[in-house]
Amino acid sequence: MERNFDPKQVSIKIDTPLLQTIDSPADLKRLSIKELETLAEEIRRVIIQTTACTGGHVAPNLGVVELTLALHYVFDAPTDRIVWDVGHQCYTHKLVTGRRDRFHTLRQWQGISGFPKRDESHYDAFGAGHASTSISAALGMASAKHLKGCPSRIIAVIGDGSMTGGMAFEALNHAGDLGRDLIVVLNDNEMSISPNVGALSSFLSRKLSSRTVMSLKREVENTLKAIPGVGSNIVQLLKKSEESFLSFFTPGMLFQALRFQYIGPIKGHRLDRLIETFKTAKSLKGPVLIHVGTVKGKGYEPAERDPARFHGIGCFDPKTGETRKENVPSYTAVFGRCLTELAEKDPRIVAITAAMPQGTGLDVFAQVYPKRFFDVGIAEQHAVTFAAGLAAEGYRPVVAVYSTFLQRAYDQIVHDVCLQKLPVIFAMDRGGLVGEDGPTHHGVFDMAYLRHIPNMVVMAPKDENELRHMLKTAVLQQGPIALRYPRGQGVGVPLDPEPHALPIGVAELLREGDHVTLVAVGAMVMEAVAAAEILAREGIEATVINARFVKPLDVHLIGQWASKTPLLVTVEENVRQGGFGSAVLEALSEEGLLPRRVLRLGIPDTFIPHGHLKKLRRELGLDAEGIAHSVRHALVATLPAIHEAPVRAIR
Amino acid sequence: MERNFDPKQVSIKIDTPLLQTIDSPADLKRLSIKELETLAEEIRRVIIQTTACTGGHVAPNLGVVELTLALHYVFDAPTDRIVWDVGHQCYTHKLVTGRRDRFHTLRQWQGISGFPKRDESHYDAFGAGHASTSISAALGMASAKHLKGCPSRIIAVIGDGSMTGGMAFEALNHAGDLGRDLIVVLNDNEMSISPNVGALSSFLSRKLSSRTVMSLKREVENTLKAIPGVGSNIVQLLKKSEESFLSFFTPGMLFQALRFQYIGPIKGHRLDRLIETFKTAKSLKGPVLIHVGTVKGKGYEPAERDPARFHGIGCFDPKTGETRKENVPSYTAVFGRCLTELAEKDPRIVAITAAMPQGTGLDVFAQVYPKRFFDVGIAEQHAVTFAAGLAAEGYRPVVAVYSTFLQRAYDQIVHDVCLQKLPVIFAMDRGGLVGEDGPTHHGVFDMAYLRHIPNMVVMAPKDENELRHMLKTAVLQQGPIALRYPRGQGVGVPLDPEPHALPIGVAELLREGDHVTLVAVGAMVMEAVAAAEILAREGIEATVINARFVKPLDVHLIGQWASKTPLLVTVEENVRQGGFGSAVLEALSEEGLLPRRVLRLGIPDTFIPHGHLKKLRRELGLDAEGIAHSVRHALVATLPAIHEAPVRAIR
Repeated sequence: MERNFDPKQVSIKIDTPLLQTIDSPADLKRLSIKELETLAEEIRRVIIQTTACTGGHVAPNLGVVELTLALHYVFDAPTDRIVWDVGHQCYTHKLVTGRRDRFHTLRQWQGISGFPKRDESHYDAFGAGHASTSISAALGMASAKHLKGCPSRIIAVIGDGSMTGGMAFEALNHAGDLGRDLIVVLNDNEMSISPNVGALSSFLSRKLSSRTVMSLKREVENTLKAIPGVGSNIVQLLKKSEESFLSFFTPGMLFQALRFQYIGPIKGHRLDRLIETFKTAKSLKGPVLIHVGTVKGKGYEPAERDPARFHGIGCFDPKTGETRKENVPSYTAVFGRCLTELAEKDPRIVAITAAMPQGTGLDVFAQVYPKRFFDVGIAEQHAVTFAAGLAAEGYRPVVAVYSTFLQRAYDQIVHDVCLQKLPVIFAMDRGGLVGEDGPTHHGVFDMAYLRHIPNMVVMAPKDENELRHMLKTAVLQQGPIALRYPRGQGVGVPLDPEPHALPIGVAELLREGDHVTLVAVGAMVMEAVAAAEILAREGIEATVINARFVKPLDVHLIGQWASKTPLLVTVEENVRQGGFGSAVLEALSEEGLLPRRVLRLGIPDTFIPHGHLKKLRRELGLDAEGIAHSVRHALVATLPAIHEAPVRAIR
Repeated sequence: MERNFDPKQVSIKIDTPLLQTIDSPADLKRLSIKELETLAEEIRRVIIQTTACTGGHVAPNLGVVELTLALHYVFDAPTDRIVWDVGHQCYTHKLVTGRRDRFHTLRQWQGISGFPKRDESHYDAFGAGHASTSISAALGMASAKHLKGCPSRIIAVIGDGSMTGGMAFEALNHAGDLGRDLIVVLNDNEMSISPNVGALSSFLSRKLSSRTVMSLKREVENTLKAIPGVGSNIVQLLKKSEESFLSFFTPGMLFQALRFQYIGPIKGHRLDRLIETFKTAKSLKGPVLIHVGTVKGKGYEPAERDPARFHGIGCFDPKTGETRKENVPSYTAVFGRCLTELAEKDPRIVAITAAMPQGTGLDVFAQVYPKRFFDVGIAEQHAVTFAAGLAAEGYRPVVAVYSTFLQRAYDQIVHDVCLQKLPVIFAMDRGGLVGEDGPTHHGVFDMAYLRHIPNMVVMAPKDENELRHMLKTAVLQQGPIALRYPRGQGVGVPLDPEPHALPIGVAELLREGDHVTLVAVGAMVMEAVAAAEILAREGIEATVINARFVKPLDVHLIGQWASKTPLLVTVEENVRQGGFGSAVLEALSEEGLLPRRVLRLGIPDTFIPHGHLKKLRRELGLDAEGIAHSVRHALVATLPAIHEAPVRAIR
């Protein structure tokens, strides 16, 4: 998508006279409500035109334009802290906090991030990327302010989707107990990424639309007033219970039980009401929850019509909202179709998502097998243990989840799945680097954190066809098993008519050569093959092994080639510390088969920034050229140690 | 404590005529309420007498004797599934499900586990050890039953403490949405391990004791009845809202909002009421929550008086409840005292626990600095991000937590702490094997899952004095840092007058020898030193390095000795896959300093069962004798490769 990106075109296209005057939130405070409304329209145009080129979280950002302007109008950031939950709704915030002129670099290599980032601006009070953390962080800040005796305000902005994450509840429970000054803005759009699920959500939305309650209350009061015989004690009693009545019949009930003051629901696209409400909240003591109703994708018809597709999207035609059709299917799509096919023959297969039916490709499955499909909300911990419960009863649950989000359920994988050897299948999408979403979304730890758990099997396919075989393998496995595949399009290989099970722990020899052995896993296999081709043109002959399994490792095949060639190179799109390469080191060291020189290519010990996937791989030396370069370099360094191999070929 | 354990004595001491007739829950169903009450008393005596010898979770188990008997009386396990949250309250369950005669082996090596275990009995529907998983697992089972069309009942038993864990909320939210037949028994004793915290808890307990509500309602009704002029519509309206009234004024409100039917509160030590209630619940459809009030430690005065101490306890005198005083202070106590001392001079220090002020040693700190102490409930995820919020405002939060429980917050450590380089200190108690609590409590993954996170520093002290220096080091560190220390008594070394900061990433050379280099970390250092002494008596001279830092590793010192000796042995009480030894492999391989033979001693790739710590270390070869044995064995194997070292000395 990078090639479609032309920042100049963007800045020329959009006429934003008011926005041009906003260098910091202080400039907002000079504007009238009418001007703020005009500004909101300008910002919407900027967001749409920019994300049309860069991709991004279109719908969440269009939903909070007024909310963000009102917050910055009433509160005094950065002294007052605004903590954005997930952070994918911070575009307006960035536009009015000094990043307007860099906004066209959104999500691009060395451009501004699509998420709040403490390094990027002192207006970004806390970084985010995963859901449900904002109240915890804000409460920590509020407690700090209280200890210091500082009077500044802390505001957490959290969506109703994020409220389904248990961590948000943990924080509410603690906040109600502590009683510190804290404002939680509940941005209720009745969606997480897809339409929101869960009892809480339907409760919130049901109450938002109901008016019968108010009329019921009024009827009781009026009737009582009309009866002369009614004693004043009754009227007083009813008066006393008025608040109770109200709170019972509104979502406030829940939050009041947790000792929050509740205000709402407020219409989230009415700047006047938002500003008035925030001003009221500013003067309140203790924890306050403001319930704001917004529309995801507001003001852009294609996004309002299909907010799930426009939650996060690549570049699109701003006029129609259409995205380019890819010729090669994505790993996600291949996974979704294959699982649906396998489920036809195997009634034990059930599928679970944590609020991402589309993102994980399970939407196909859900349509065909609605009863065997479970969307549990943004709740990865529950998703995994819920799956373990299904597995304990004989089912083969497939937890389809982005690698980065599965980090939330590490403990549940250890205890509820692996310790009990339950046959839960983890289909980890977006394994490896993900590109523009950056460090909070790269799935680069999974091989390391899964392979050290006993009883776990970890696989990664070299292409979308192998993904299908691995899924079949997983369904037949009697214990925990994970398969990890990358974001984006597949390699474009033809798909075998039927997926077949692979032998567990057996690698695949793709190419033979005497100078170096490349052992690659997952998406890096095809890069390694391409690297071998580059090297072959220079006279360096490489063996290439597709490891297939991170655990159990094919020590036999890898060891055999490791002892034949003077240099062993492991390639993974995963952290090098404790990752796949370390597994190879461990195994060969145990077998006494370690060659003199081992090179472990992978993600270095640092968080990788955002940017186009190809750019990131290039920077990290994880594309064919980079791998070839590392091999070349290492072979030169290895030269004195080479006795067994024909060195002449190496220039 | 093993030496105090004499099972014969136990079985002789306790006269349990009724319990002797209970071989399975079916036998309970023949008993009268009166007999069940007698049985409850017998069971209490067995629990007290047994745990007095074996140690265990005394107070939680004494609290649920009647609850457990009533469940097994009404429901039909194992067809009906009973899922115990945390699982530390399963003793009565084990006693009446065929494990009576093995109960004296509780928590002992190869004896029965202190937790539910699917391997141990088909009555243990789901394993547990960490809090807040039961509703998720039970909901998975209920969904499976529904898919199969099986009519059996699923019951989750969860404490009010576990309800503060967000995962429980995630599951409630999903359960209310799904509407499957599911019974959640809320065992409300107003405690987690220590007195429970959080807005929810105080809400639950406040309502349990309040009677004003009922009288208020009655007053309104009676007054209305007494007034002849009141129209029937008003009475009807009030009638209609009667349920609302009730539910508003009871904790049921919360659960009803999540679409659970609510029954309670029920007195949890009245067998007749429990049985009656469970019978009612059995016939209800959809999700039901039964709120039961129990007393932790019920029926044993010392435990009722001090339920926190009797939550989990070593062997004690059953008459007085007294435990043996240890002469050497525990790591926990040294940590608690040292942190309190450091906090005097450094006002930035604040301390956080997830519901374990005593267990972590923070109770001392809390007494001296109550405002700088935060108990967040059983909520590790929130604890970590809350700490990050405090750190973002300039504080130095110390999250004191058992290693095993910190697994819950892996994602928060990655994103909210390490990605943002916030100076949060993780004081990880119970790192390594913990003994009798077994696989759900061993803290054997932490080095592996922490060291692969960028920006993290990971330390482990060799003794309690070094723990103090590391704590001082941590407080001065500008970024994330973790220190990990074992359960139980310290080594007994004298404590330096003042703790001082250690240079980051610098190891300590403890002993020099030419035949082998032992690089150990944490509790394994003193074992390695002792192993070196054993080996020296056999003429094998060992170098011993105290690594101190798992990350960053002292590659210089380790590399230097690795190249001087023919055998390098790493020793850690942590999983070998991706652990400390792998870090050494990685670093030396990169530097080209790997010796021909490297031995990585540590926890093998399997879950380690329960048993006395010494026994476990012996079994795993992780005591001095075991280490010496491994070295001896490896040196023989290495012999042909030894050229540089004087081999004569080795027999």
